[in-house]
Amino acid sequence: MIKVAIIGGGNVAYHLTKAFKTSKKVEVALFSGRDDLSKKIINIDICIIAVSDSAIVEVAKKLLDLNVLVAHTSGSVAIKNLPNKRCGVFYPLQTFSKEKKVNFNNIPICLESNNTEDFNILKILAGYISNSIAAVSSEQRRALHVAAVVANNFSNHMFTIAEGICKENDLSFDLLKPLILETADKIKTLDPFIAQTGPAKRHDLDTIQNHENLLKNSIHKKLYKQITQSILNTYGQKL
Amino acid sequence: MIKVAIIGGGNVAYHLTKAFKTSKKVEVALFSGRDDLSKKIINIDICIIAVSDSAIVEVAKKLLDLNVLVAHTSGSVAIKNLPNKRCGVFYPLQTFSKEKKVNFNNIPICLESNNTEDFNILKILAGYISNSIAAVSSEQRRALHVAAVVANNFSNHMFTIAEGICKENDLSFDLLKPLILETADKIKTLDPFIAQTGPAKRHDLDTIQNHENLLKNSIHKKLYKQITQSILNTYGQKL
Repeated sequence: MIKVAIIGGGNVAYHLTKAFKTSKKVEVALFSGRDDLSKKIINIDICIIAVSDSAIVEVAKKLLDLNVLVAHTSGSVAIKNLPNKRCGVFYPLQTFSKEKKVNFNNIPICLESNNTEDFNILKILAGYISNSIAAVSSEQRRALHVAAVVANNFSNHMFTIAEGICKENDLSFDLLKPLILETADKIKTLDPFIAQTGPAKRHDLDTIQNHENLLKNSIHKKLYKQITQSILNTYGQKL
Repeated sequence: MIKVAIIGGGNVAYHLTKAFKTSKKVEVALFSGRDDLSKKIINIDICIIAVSDSAIVEVAKKLLDLNVLVAHTSGSVAIKNLPNKRCGVFYPLQTFSKEKKVNFNNIPICLESNNTEDFNILKILAGYISNSIAAVSSEQRRALHVAAVVANNFSNHMFTIAEGICKENDLSFDLLKPLILETADKIKTLDPFIAQTGPAKRHDLDTIQNHENLLKNSIHKKLYKQITQSILNTYGQKL
């Protein structure tokens, strides 16, 4: 039985706690970052800090007196920023919303530690909730986080823009849902470079011009131009 | 039995022909746009033109002598551009790649016609392959096509950029696949405006700055800035 304290009040803390609760090999307790942690956290093997990036070090400092393994869940914060003797990273690469259940089975847990022993403890713990475990250095994790922002946050923002265009034209956003699901499903078997379709990929400049004329929101118009430019560029074409 | 001729050599023609072949109520034949169509197309009820936008009118003109219903499959071309007496639009809202099987069941087929009788014929035909049928005017379809480009083409391009970042950092793109699948899965139950996560949504300016510094490709750096700006703007925040 591994005894885990999770510290945080956000989506990652919430879903991670829920996931550990499904394992019989883990005893988990959730704490707020504002708690007097060194007094409350007793008889714990691993503290997982799942607070906002800017608060991680401050919380980690509160745990200095405890002889526990301290790991954070951030994509951006380097392991060397943790002041604790035994430290690591436990970064679940997924997008978490309170309103949406997640299945941890396939979520890659990206691990890092300064020593093999602690790495193996994190690996055992991660293995209780996921089948996908990866050793990822701080530098790689930083890049992976940028890639995740581009792949997830930016795509989701595209969905938001698309929904806005639907609303402006009395169209149900439901019409786009099968397309969005297929867009993601394709990358299971096709490289996204190969899966690309659309006017920019076909170098269909008339359609591109018509679309730009159609967009009223100036930020969206600019984005349309620049993403189109980036697609043309990726496939060695010019406007 | 509805007898359908599909004209085209691309992905839409290929997948649409395959879909109709699964229905016992449809007899389907595939023709190339370069064929001498008015001689070859005999005893057909509906001709579906699935060629590139710029070639649609030219192909439609070849069918002027035939007393058939002529429909194109384009998101961008207005119905009034078709010179045929009986004409319509049969626009399957999906992304098609030759390498990827698609299930037409849930693909919205967006229909338009100048008269109720032909509209109903298209509706019956669409019903043989899909459960999702929508009446969409030329003007709405043009907007829907822009929304589809944003939701699909642009998202997929984000996946391509993310894959590039992974490769540059010796990371497997497989690490991002569960994230990408969840990004799409979320919109089944959550509005994308609500589903948004990430540094721009949290107004985490430090992380945004770090990410910009990390990106080497100047076009990607510019895109990162502008999409971030658009997200901040969407949630009423500023850089």
